[in-house]
Amino acid sequence: MIEVIVFDADDTLWHNETLFKVAENKLADLLADYHPSDFVIETHLETEGRNIKTYGYGVKGFTLSMIETAIDLTEGKIPPEDIRKIIGFGKEMLDADVVLLEGVCETIEKLSKSYPLMIITKGDLLDQQRKVARSGLGDFFKHIEVVSNKTSKTYEKVLAKHDIVPQHFLMVGNSLKSDVLPVVEIGGQAVYIPNSTTWAHEAVSQEDADRKEYYEIENIGQLVKIIEKKEK
Amino acid sequence: MIEVIVFDADDTLWHNETLFKVAENKLADLLADYHPSDFVIETHLETEGRNIKTYGYGVKGFTLSMIETAIDLTEGKIPPEDIRKIIGFGKEMLDADVVLLEGVCETIEKLSKSYPLMIITKGDLLDQQRKVARSGLGDFFKHIEVVSNKTSKTYEKVLAKHDIVPQHFLMVGNSLKSDVLPVVEIGGQAVYIPNSTTWAHEAVSQEDADRKEYYEIENIGQLVKIIEKKEK
Repeated sequence: MIEVIVFDADDTLWHNETLFKVAENKLADLLADYHPSDFVIETHLETEGRNIKTYGYGVKGFTLSMIETAIDLTEGKIPPEDIRKIIGFGKEMLDADVVLLEGVCETIEKLSKSYPLMIITKGDLLDQQRKVARSGLGDFFKHIEVVSNKTSKTYEKVLAKHDIVPQHFLMVGNSLKSDVLPVVEIGGQAVYIPNSTTWAHEAVSQEDADRKEYYEIENIGQLVKIIEKKEK
Repeated sequence: MIEVIVFDADDTLWHNETLFKVAENKLADLLADYHPSDFVIETHLETEGRNIKTYGYGVKGFTLSMIETAIDLTEGKIPPEDIRKIIGFGKEMLDADVVLLEGVCETIEKLSKSYPLMIITKGDLLDQQRKVARSGLGDFFKHIEVVSNKTSKTYEKVLAKHDIVPQHFLMVGNSLKSDVLPVVEIGGQAVYIPNSTTWAHEAVSQEDADRKEYYEIENIGQLVKIIEKKEK
């Protein structure tokens, strides 16, 4: 029995990782005189990974890491006006329109008639709230929870706060590591919708993925059927 | 009748604004060859204010604004290695120890025996959660809510989520604009504890302050007495 359906937001409801890819490519273009594109992107990913424990997830930390990468990779020779451009890449990301993934609008509207819906997402607080507002979907969701990380402990805490038993909640998301495995871990149900551009830091081993039980669908349009089948 | 006591965090429970002042002074020192200290700090405050709608509150946006200010004020002549130093100022702030204000530990411990306590704070999500953890006070608080802004609407939403009636909640904080006036506005009770270093963006007009009713105390140590008096 499902009492509440919880959605991840970025790359589950709307395009997000593409914005980061665009910014990374702009950074690579900016540093094209110094290093090949692949190397810039790879180095930035490393910088970002190293900084996550300090900055957490989101565009602001990503931007600070881009600046750090640019200084590192040019051995301090990057013109400050190019650093201003990097700040601009970050601001563009924060100001970007929200583009819903295919099938999201209809699915959310339909499910909201039968179930309380909720969002659990990580990232910069203001940015995530703003994206929900810009998406036009805000009214369909009873609660929006922005968290700093998505572990089984995080889910337990959020569910306890809302008096939800793990067994009665279904999580839908594009990340095995953040949306699926920790939920299955605490006895919740999960639907995995892989996205073509999953962030490198979200990868899990095949072994981890194989051990757990969850549903996998190709796109969110198939969600209503899966739920109807489960609830029979 | 008070059912729950809610605390602001930064500069109510622990020193925070001092960290920002220290970073601003470091920025002024770094740009000392270009402009007088006061002008650097004033310009940075303007940049920060202009960026708040994009970045929200917190250290990461503050750091990005410092970098922008440095590029502006040197007309692009700042050496990139100095920009790396500014990134370092931000990281130091995020890694800083939490120093409790005088009387906080005893007061929180005492009140937690009679009331559920909660924190409502704005800032970077991860940073705020980390400060609660570092403060050693985490276990005394039933809920920690990090919000992107503190308006009367924000308070209404958070209170509704926790099934709290405004009339039965008491908010304690150092900002008239964020902690006191919006709470009084929705019928809640508020205790104002002015701090010697209040952030310029938090200032309100004397007129706004005079219109509303709230308690004002000099330090948190007086809070228990105020509450005992109210509850008689």
